[in-house]
Amino acid sequence: MPSSLIRSARPGDVPLILEFIRDLAAYEKLLPEVEATEEKLRATLFAERPAAECVLAFAATGAPAGFAIFFPNYSTFLARPGLYLEDLFVKPEFRGQGIGKSLLLHLATLANARGCGRMEWAVLDWNQPAIEFYESLGAERKADWTICRLSGERLRQSARPGPGVHG
Amino acid sequence: MPSSLIRSARPGDVPLILEFIRDLAAYEKLLPEVEATEEKLRATLFAERPAAECVLAFAATGAPAGFAIFFPNYSTFLARPGLYLEDLFVKPEFRGQGIGKSLLLHLATLANARGCGRMEWAVLDWNQPAIEFYESLGAERKADWTICRLSGERLRQSARPGPGVHG
Repeated sequence: MPSSLIRSARPGDVPLILEFIRDLAAYEKLLPEVEATEEKLRATLFAERPAAECVLAFAATGAPAGFAIFFPNYSTFLARPGLYLEDLFVKPEFRGQGIGKSLLLHLATLANARGCGRMEWAVLDWNQPAIEFYESLGAERKADWTICRLSGERLRQSARPGPGVHG
Repeated sequence: MPSSLIRSARPGDVPLILEFIRDLAAYEKLLPEVEATEEKLRATLFAERPAAECVLAFAATGAPAGFAIFFPNYSTFLARPGLYLEDLFVKPEFRGQGIGKSLLLHLATLANARGCGRMEWAVLDWNQPAIEFYESLGAERKADWTICRLSGERLRQSARPGPGVHG
């Protein structure tokens, strides 16, 4: 496996992070869902208390090759924190060089160092190369669980008027 | 809908929280997976920086009826934080009184107040009453995503030796 470098993202990397997010969304056929902007990424990833962490992977040539965004989650059954991997992406032209694996193992190492009981992420059912890659690393698929989501207008409508709201 | 009270859990509620976790695990047929203890819950939920938040619901009689455990997550596509609901449980004898709905709407209100773009959770495919309940609230099921998990020995084996480890 050629050597690759992985390092934490810095504020100056925001344009690159946005590029990766858009590349990933295009690959997942979800580009219309992307509302991220450089400004929003800067405000959430590089705040005093960041909402998530980002690591970048570079190819042996120094070219930016991929990224991962993650944050802590929590398992009630274990009563321990875990690590949730929100996004993992390697540019098509850098695939097959072990960069995705390096990113995932980097995060597994972080998860262990932080005392996490488990590491979790979600995969699209049609993304067979990703599924095979994850299974080769020993990940199990929780096929009997489905993710539910309340968002946008439906989330806003579900909110009760707060103490400061009259009407 | 009879009135019910929802409040944030306090350190003195830890025995009750553990009872709810075990009740939920038994319902989900996952009791053998529960490693939580009062000590572990206290250390993670009531630390200076808690790993998750817990709210409790009480019936009109004052009896503890249910709970929810949640933490912030992050959407890269929105570049906004979200709210992830790890567990929601209402004791069987208190179901049908709107307590589960009150808990979920309480969290939706919190999510809105905190500027979250979405609220997410996972449901077991065979849990038809829960699925119907969530759909009645306008939640969508992300049926094309599957959760992957690396845990226990497999997670430990995936970790690379850190700078302090030789061998």
